[in-house]
Amino acid sequence: MIVRLPSEVKSKIRPAYQAGWPGLIEAYRAYLPVTDSTPVVTLHEGNTPLIPLESIAQQIGRGVRVYAKFDGLNPTGSFKDRGMTMAISKAKEAGAQAVVCASTGNTSAAAAAYARRAGMRAFVIIPDGYVALGKLAQALMYGAEVIAIEDNFDVCMEIVRALSERYPVTLVNSVNPYRLEGQKTAAFEVVDELGDAPDWLFIPVGNAGNISAYWMGFCQYRQYGRCDRLPRMMGFQAAGSAPLLNNCPVAEPQTVATAIRIGNPANWERAIAVRDASQGAFDAVTDEDILHAYRLLGAEGVFCEPASATSVAGLLKVQARVPDEATVVCVLTGNGLKDPQSAIDHSKATLKKGITPNLESVAAALGF
Amino acid sequence: MIVRLPSEVKSKIRPAYQAGWPGLIEAYRAYLPVTDSTPVVTLHEGNTPLIPLESIAQQIGRGVRVYAKFDGLNPTGSFKDRGMTMAISKAKEAGAQAVVCASTGNTSAAAAAYARRAGMRAFVIIPDGYVALGKLAQALMYGAEVIAIEDNFDVCMEIVRALSERYPVTLVNSVNPYRLEGQKTAAFEVVDELGDAPDWLFIPVGNAGNISAYWMGFCQYRQYGRCDRLPRMMGFQAAGSAPLLNNCPVAEPQTVATAIRIGNPANWERAIAVRDASQGAFDAVTDEDILHAYRLLGAEGVFCEPASATSVAGLLKVQARVPDEATVVCVLTGNGLKDPQSAIDHSKATLKKGITPNLESVAAALGF
Repeated sequence: MIVRLPSEVKSKIRPAYQAGWPGLIEAYRAYLPVTDSTPVVTLHEGNTPLIPLESIAQQIGRGVRVYAKFDGLNPTGSFKDRGMTMAISKAKEAGAQAVVCASTGNTSAAAAAYARRAGMRAFVIIPDGYVALGKLAQALMYGAEVIAIEDNFDVCMEIVRALSERYPVTLVNSVNPYRLEGQKTAAFEVVDELGDAPDWLFIPVGNAGNISAYWMGFCQYRQYGRCDRLPRMMGFQAAGSAPLLNNCPVAEPQTVATAIRIGNPANWERAIAVRDASQGAFDAVTDEDILHAYRLLGAEGVFCEPASATSVAGLLKVQARVPDEATVVCVLTGNGLKDPQSAIDHSKATLKKGITPNLESVAAALGF
Repeated sequence: MIVRLPSEVKSKIRPAYQAGWPGLIEAYRAYLPVTDSTPVVTLHEGNTPLIPLESIAQQIGRGVRVYAKFDGLNPTGSFKDRGMTMAISKAKEAGAQAVVCASTGNTSAAAAAYARRAGMRAFVIIPDGYVALGKLAQALMYGAEVIAIEDNFDVCMEIVRALSERYPVTLVNSVNPYRLEGQKTAAFEVVDELGDAPDWLFIPVGNAGNISAYWMGFCQYRQYGRCDRLPRMMGFQAAGSAPLLNNCPVAEPQTVATAIRIGNPANWERAIAVRDASQGAFDAVTDEDILHAYRLLGAEGVFCEPASATSVAGLLKVQARVPDEATVVCVLTGNGLKDPQSAIDHSKATLKKGITPNLESVAAALGF
């Protein structure tokens, strides 16, 4: 038997929020270079959580509000999905049958997922002898065709560029102009949720594409009256991989934050312009700082990639400069599940083995 | 310089959807056993994508519409977060300082994340010699205290029950009544997005909690006039771990779908009642069927746990019975990143090594 309620009761129990998010192209269509004839290739990416980091805010004190924009909850586990829904939709609109990228990490996963969903072939070119097959698990599962060549990553990049010029294959590495267009929507979401831009935005910087994309997004939203202010853009690099900070490319970058281990960023000049226009800064944090922030985030229930924790490490480093009652957003770019070994290697959690199987022993082991 | 637009232009460029989801307790507060004094412990779980599976729908034909409810995009990577936000919020309301569970998988990750976020200790009891440390990476990263005892899983369960009775520790295994309350919100989301319940719902069945929770959700929504129909509930088990189908516990369940490798489901009777009330069915699929569905999902850009693919394998098995133009939802319970080794072992993607580093060789390897 169905109980039918009078309508005044029903309206009371209407949910406060209605589920359903169509993906960022449909949500922000008016702000993106798409038309009604663009075939939208989507996995309903975007609308990722803006999670209050209360214990970190408490540690800083002075009424500072701290949020994590957790882009690791995108469909393939990183912010790359934002750019890839745009790049693949535009490639499909142009009639592409295949895409190519040189990447061993998050880009290859996103490229493979969206290209295969669009019915295209996905080619991933990597250096041979690259042993961490686990990092390729996603690309393989989405059905990419992976080619390992007997040379280094720079040569991979040369080959994918040449391939895209000579064969019917669209290049979806960061030189693809639609990627940043998609990525800028993360800034829109932050504003939509907070009601305005934050005062400060902390973000990991590797290739420097994402800091540029966020800035594009905030500026566009302000231009169209959706926010009143613009944030100070605080770009953080790992100390062993800090070309922007040192104003010099790094030949052999070293850091535990592999996703930002880039010695010569593609968006170098753009990033400098963002820093200056926003009255922001670039700075670096040590691997130790990064791993400390990684664990602090874990204790707040947020499991990100080590590289993502660079933003929070940056905030902690310069916290004294953040004004009272400022609103701060730290960008977390990737899901911690991408790199379980780092969690095992760097957590400081308790693991006690060989406990006798009875209540008393277990209770004692727990300190009761 | 800020360009200020006239208001009629501004209203045109209002986004079609506004980002921001407060987590399932705030969204569905009126439907959940919480009060204004319940401290809400949330990572903004829920509102997971309902992704059209177009190539699978095309394969079935006859106008059947197929969607995946991808709960692997919850904060800790599985549907367990839905139950855990409720269980931990209620534990905190009751003044708990610590929670305990016996689990080596998704439950321990969710319990650890929410408990730590709430400022509680999180105890995870596992059998010793359980070697797959990778599965514990999340719990460790969130800061759980893991105790390995020298006995099997059943003894772990006995000990956690006894612990929760004798010490100030709340048990958050599936016997916790608030877990299903949280999990039922997935059904609300499906209805909110489709405008009504689907005709058929396919769902993996291990402990049989989730099928019970979905049914609770659909029934509650129909009672309150939010949907007009109820779905046929189709519960699928793995052939080597199918106690419900065979009407007999399985002593040593075997399947590649580890998340549903359960020989004696806790919610056995409840699940039978759901099947009968919904005019649904239980059935089993082989590991081969599961891995085939796992790869099909990958090719649609969706990377789930092998166990999750059981729902799609089930749909493919009984597709002839699904009526023309029916709307079908397949529940995907966990993120594929939880188990990258399965992707590497079971993908059939191409990986070509040792290719000479020049354009011609790479083009030839790609078939150009």
